[in-house]
Amino acid sequence: MVQYMSDLLDVSFAALSDPTRRGVLEQLGRAEASITDLAQAFHMTLTGMGKHVGVLEQAELVTTEKVGRVRTCRLGPRRLQEETAWIEDYRRLWESRFDELDKVVEELKRKEKVDGRKKRE
Amino acid sequence: MVQYMSDLLDVSFAALSDPTRRGVLEQLGRAEASITDLAQAFHMTLTGMGKHVGVLEQAELVTTEKVGRVRTCRLGPRRLQEETAWIEDYRRLWESRFDELDKVVEELKRKEKVDGRKKRE
Repeated sequence: MVQYMSDLLDVSFAALSDPTRRGVLEQLGRAEASITDLAQAFHMTLTGMGKHVGVLEQAELVTTEKVGRVRTCRLGPRRLQEETAWIEDYRRLWESRFDELDKVVEELKRKEKVDGRKKRE
Repeated sequence: MVQYMSDLLDVSFAALSDPTRRGVLEQLGRAEASITDLAQAFHMTLTGMGKHVGVLEQAELVTTEKVGRVRTCRLGPRRLQEETAWIEDYRRLWESRFDELDKVVEELKRKEKVDGRKKRE
Protein backbone atom coordinates (compact mmCIF):
# COMPACT_ATOMS: atom_id res chain seq x y z
CA MET A 1 0.00 0.00 0.00
CA VAL A 2 1.02 3.57 -0.63
CA GLN A 3 2.64 5.36 2.28
CA TYR A 4 0.10 7.84 3.62
CA MET A 5 0.56 10.78 5.92
CA SER A 6 0.18 8.54 8.93
CA ASP A 7 -0.22 11.30 11.56
CA LEU A 8 -3.01 12.90 9.57
CA LEU A 9 -4.88 9.58 9.34
CA ASP A 10 -4.41 9.07 13.10
CA VAL A 11 -6.07 12.35 14.01
CA SER A 12 -8.78 12.26 11.37
CA PHE A 13 -9.91 8.69 12.06
CA ALA A 14 -9.87 9.49 15.80
CA ALA A 15 -11.94 12.63 15.08
CA LEU A 16 -14.48 10.52 13.14
CA SER A 17 -14.78 7.89 15.90
CA ASP A 18 -17.34 9.94 17.85
CA PRO A 19 -21.03 10.26 16.88
CA THR A 20 -21.27 13.89 18.06
CA ARG A 21 -18.27 14.90 15.98
CA ARG A 22 -19.66 13.13 12.91
CA GLY A 23 -22.97 14.90 13.60
CA VAL A 24 -21.24 18.29 13.82
CA LEU A 25 -19.60 17.71 10.42
CA GLU A 26 -22.98 16.79 8.90
CA GLN A 27 -24.55 19.90 10.44
CA LEU A 28 -21.77 22.20 9.20
CA GLY A 29 -22.18 20.63 5.77
CA ARG A 30 -25.60 22.27 5.70
CA ALA A 31 -24.68 25.66 7.21
CA GLU A 32 -22.07 27.33 9.38
CA ALA A 33 -22.92 27.49 13.09
CA SER A 34 -21.63 28.98 16.33
CA ILE A 35 -20.38 26.81 19.19
CA THR A 36 -23.55 27.86 21.07
CA ASP A 37 -25.80 26.68 18.19
CA LEU A 38 -23.97 23.35 18.08
CA ALA A 39 -24.06 22.89 21.87
CA GLN A 40 -27.83 23.44 21.80
CA ALA A 41 -28.40 21.16 18.82
CA PHE A 42 -26.48 18.32 20.48
CA HIS A 43 -27.78 18.99 24.05
CA MET A 44 -24.30 19.61 25.35
CA THR A 45 -22.45 22.18 27.46
CA LEU A 46 -20.41 24.87 25.70
CA THR A 47 -17.23 23.37 27.18
CA GLY A 48 -18.11 19.87 25.95
CA MET A 49 -18.88 21.13 22.44
CA GLY A 50 -15.76 23.31 22.48
CA LYS A 51 -13.66 20.18 23.08
CA HIS A 52 -15.29 18.28 20.22
CA VAL A 53 -14.79 21.25 17.88
CA GLY A 54 -11.16 21.43 19.03
CA VAL A 55 -10.60 17.80 17.98
CA LEU A 56 -12.18 18.52 14.57
CA GLU A 57 -10.03 21.64 14.18
CA GLN A 58 -6.87 19.67 14.96
CA ALA A 59 -7.83 17.22 12.21
CA GLU A 60 -8.35 20.23 9.88
CA LEU A 61 -11.93 19.14 9.30
CA VAL A 62 -13.34 22.34 10.81
CA THR A 63 -12.13 25.93 10.93
CA THR A 64 -13.39 28.48 13.45
CA GLU A 65 -13.39 32.26 13.52
CA LYS A 66 -14.07 34.38 16.58
CA VAL A 67 -15.85 37.69 16.05
CA GLY A 68 -16.62 39.44 19.31
CA ARG A 69 -17.89 36.78 21.67
CA VAL A 70 -19.15 34.41 18.99
CA ARG A 71 -17.00 31.61 17.59
CA THR A 72 -18.33 30.53 14.20
CA CYS A 73 -17.53 27.04 12.88
CA ARG A 74 -17.28 26.06 9.21
CA LEU A 75 -16.16 22.95 7.35
CA GLY A 76 -12.39 22.94 6.93
CA PRO A 77 -10.44 22.47 3.70
CA ARG A 78 -10.00 18.70 4.03
CA ARG A 79 -12.23 16.43 1.99
CA LEU A 80 -10.99 13.17 3.57
CA GLN A 81 -9.19 12.20 0.35
CA GLU A 82 -6.39 10.39 2.18
CA GLU A 83 -8.89 8.51 4.36
CA THR A 84 -10.90 7.46 1.29
CA ALA A 85 -7.70 6.35 -0.45
CA TRP A 86 -6.59 4.26 2.54
CA ILE A 87 -9.97 2.57 2.86
CA GLU A 88 -10.18 1.91 -0.90
CA ASP A 89 -6.73 0.33 -0.88
CA TYR A 90 -7.73 -1.79 2.09
CA ARG A 91 -10.89 -2.98 0.35
CA ARG A 92 -8.90 -3.99 -2.70
CA LEU A 93 -6.48 -5.92 -0.48
CA TRP A 94 -9.42 -7.52 1.36
CA GLU A 95 -11.03 -8.65 -1.91
CA SER A 96 -7.85 -10.12 -3.35
CA ARG A 97 -7.23 -11.91 -0.01
CA PHE A 98 -10.70 -13.45 -0.02
CA ASP A 99 -10.40 -14.37 -3.72
CA GLU A 100 -7.23 -16.25 -2.79
CA LEU A 101 -8.99 -18.05 0.08
CA ASP A 102 -11.84 -18.94 -2.30
CA LYS A 103 -9.30 -20.55 -4.62
CA VAL A 104 -7.82 -22.57 -1.72
CA VAL A 105 -11.30 -23.75 -0.70
CA GLU A 106 -12.12 -24.69 -4.32
CA GLU A 107 -8.84 -26.60 -4.55
CA LEU A 108 -9.60 -28.48 -1.30
CA LYS A 109 -13.10 -29.33 -2.54
CA ARG A 110 -11.68 -30.60 -5.84
CA LYS A 111 -9.12 -32.77 -4.04
CA GLU A 112 -11.77 -34.15 -1.69
CA LYS A 113 -13.89 -35.11 -4.68
CA VAL A 114 -10.94 -36.87 -6.32
CA ASP A 115 -10.00 -38.64 -3.04
CA GLY A 116 -13.63 -39.66 -2.50
CA ARG A 117 -13.75 -41.10 -6.01
CA LYS A 118 -10.47 -42.99 -5.45
CA LYS A 119 -11.78 -44.48 -2.18
CA ARG A 120 -14.96 -45.65 -3.92
CA GLU A 121 -12.97 -47.26 -6.70
CA MET B 1 -27.39 11.80 5.62
CA VAL B 2 -28.45 8.21 6.02
CA GLN B 3 -28.53 6.89 9.57
CA TYR B 4 -25.60 4.54 9.94
CA MET B 5 -24.90 1.98 12.59
CA SER B 6 -23.29 4.60 14.78
CA ASP B 7 -21.66 2.23 17.31
CA LEU B 8 -20.01 0.28 14.53
CA LEU B 9 -18.55 3.47 13.03
CA ASP B 10 -17.31 4.52 16.48
CA VAL B 11 -15.32 1.34 17.02
CA SER B 12 -14.06 0.97 13.47
CA PHE B 13 -12.87 4.57 13.06
CA ALA B 14 -11.21 4.29 16.50
CA ALA B 15 -9.57 1.03 15.39
CA LEU B 16 -8.24 2.75 12.25
CA SER B 17 -6.82 5.72 14.19
CA ASP B 18 -3.60 3.89 15.06
CA PRO B 19 -0.71 3.32 12.63
CA THR B 20 0.16 -0.12 14.07
CA ARG B 21 -3.41 -1.31 13.71
CA ARG B 22 -3.60 -0.05 10.12
CA GLY B 23 -0.27 -1.81 9.50
CA VAL B 24 -1.61 -5.08 10.95
CA LEU B 25 -4.61 -4.92 8.58
CA GLU B 26 -2.28 -4.33 5.62
CA GLN B 27 -0.09 -7.25 6.72
CA LEU B 28 -3.06 -9.61 7.19
CA GLY B 29 -4.26 -8.54 3.74
CA ARG B 30 -1.18 -10.29 2.41
CA ALA B 31 -1.20 -13.41 4.63
CA GLU B 32 -2.54 -14.67 7.94
CA ALA B 33 -0.13 -14.33 10.87
CA SER B 34 0.20 -15.31 14.52
CA ILE B 35 0.29 -12.71 17.29
CA THR B 36 3.99 -13.60 17.70
CA ASP B 37 4.68 -12.91 13.99
CA LEU B 38 2.89 -9.57 14.23
CA ALA B 39 4.63 -8.59 17.49
CA GLN B 40 8.00 -9.27 15.83
CA ALA B 41 7.11 -7.45 12.61
CA PHE B 42 6.04 -4.33 14.54
CA HIS B 43 8.81 -4.54 17.21
CA MET B 44 6.29 -4.85 19.99
CA THR B 45 5.64 -7.03 23.06
CA LEU B 46 3.13 -9.88 22.77
CA THR B 47 0.89 -8.08 25.28
CA GLY B 48 1.02 -4.83 23.31
CA MET B 49 0.19 -6.57 20.03
CA GLY B 50 -2.51 -8.63 21.78
CA LYS B 51 -4.24 -5.39 22.79
CA HIS B 52 -4.11 -3.95 19.26
CA VAL B 53 -5.50 -7.19 17.82
CA GLY B 54 -8.23 -7.09 20.49
CA VAL B 55 -9.32 -3.64 19.29
CA LEU B 56 -9.39 -4.87 15.67
CA GLU B 57 -11.39 -7.95 16.73
CA GLN B 58 -13.93 -5.79 18.54
CA ALA B 59 -14.39 -3.79 15.34
CA GLU B 60 -14.85 -7.12 13.47
CA LEU B 61 -11.93 -6.24 11.22
CA VAL B 62 -9.90 -9.23 12.37
CA THR B 63 -10.80 -12.73 13.53
CA THR B 64 -8.48 -14.94 15.56
CA GLU B 65 -8.31 -18.66 16.17
CA LYS B 66 -6.28 -20.36 18.88
CA VAL B 67 -4.82 -23.76 18.08
CA GLY B 68 -2.62 -25.08 20.89
CA ARG B 69 -0.54 -22.13 22.02
CA VAL B 70 -0.68 -20.22 18.76
CA ARG B 71 -3.31 -17.57 18.06
CA THR B 72 -3.65 -17.03 14.31
CA CYS B 73 -5.07 -13.74 13.02
CA ARG B 74 -6.95 -13.27 9.74
CA LEU B 75 -8.88 -10.42 8.16
CA GLY B 76 -12.44 -10.35 9.45
CA PRO B 77 -15.64 -10.28 7.40
CA ARG B 78 -15.99 -6.48 7.35
CA ARG B 79 -14.98 -4.60 4.24
CA LEU B 80 -15.51 -1.11 5.71
CA GLN B 81 -18.59 -0.55 3.52
CA GLU B 82 -20.33 1.61 6.13
CA GLU B 83 -17.21 3.70 6.68
CA THR B 84 -16.80 4.22 2.93
CA ALA B 85 -20.47 5.19 2.64
CA TRP B 86 -20.21 7.72 5.48
CA ILE B 87 -17.08 9.33 4.04
CA GLU B 88 -18.59 9.43 0.51
CA ASP B 89 -21.74 11.12 1.84
CA TYR B 90 -19.58 13.60 3.72
CA ARG B 91 -17.56 14.43 0.61
CA ARG B 92 -20.73 15.06 -1.37
CA LEU B 93 -21.97 17.36 1.41
CA TRP B 94 -18.59 19.12 1.50
CA GLU B 95 -18.64 19.71 -2.26
CA SER B 96 -22.16 21.08 -2.34
CA ARG B 97 -21.30 23.33 0.62
CA PHE B 98 -18.26 24.76 -1.13
CA ASP B 99 -20.17 25.11 -4.42
CA GLU B 100 -22.65 27.24 -2.48
CA LEU B 101 -19.88 29.39 -1.02
CA ASP B 102 -18.42 29.79 -4.52
CA LYS B 103 -21.77 31.12 -5.70
CA VAL B 104 -21.90 33.62 -2.81
CA VAL B 105 -18.37 34.82 -3.67
CA GLU B 106 -19.29 35.13 -7.37
CA GLU B 107 -22.40 37.11 -6.43
CA LEU B 108 -20.35 39.45 -4.22
CA LYS B 109 -17.80 39.97 -7.00
CA ARG B 110 -20.59 40.72 -9.50
CA LYS B 111 -22.15 43.27 -7.16
CA GLU B 112 -18.79 44.90 -6.51
CA LYS B 113 -18.26 45.26 -10.26
CA VAL B 114 -21.70 46.84 -10.70
CA ASP B 115 -21.13 49.17 -7.72
CA GLY B 116 -17.69 50.11 -9.08
CA ARG B 117 -19.23 50.90 -12.45
CA LYS B 118 -21.98 53.00 -10.84
CA LYS B 119 -19.39 54.99 -8.88
CA ARG B 120 -17.40 55.71 -12.04
CA GLU B 121 -20.51 56.87 -13.88
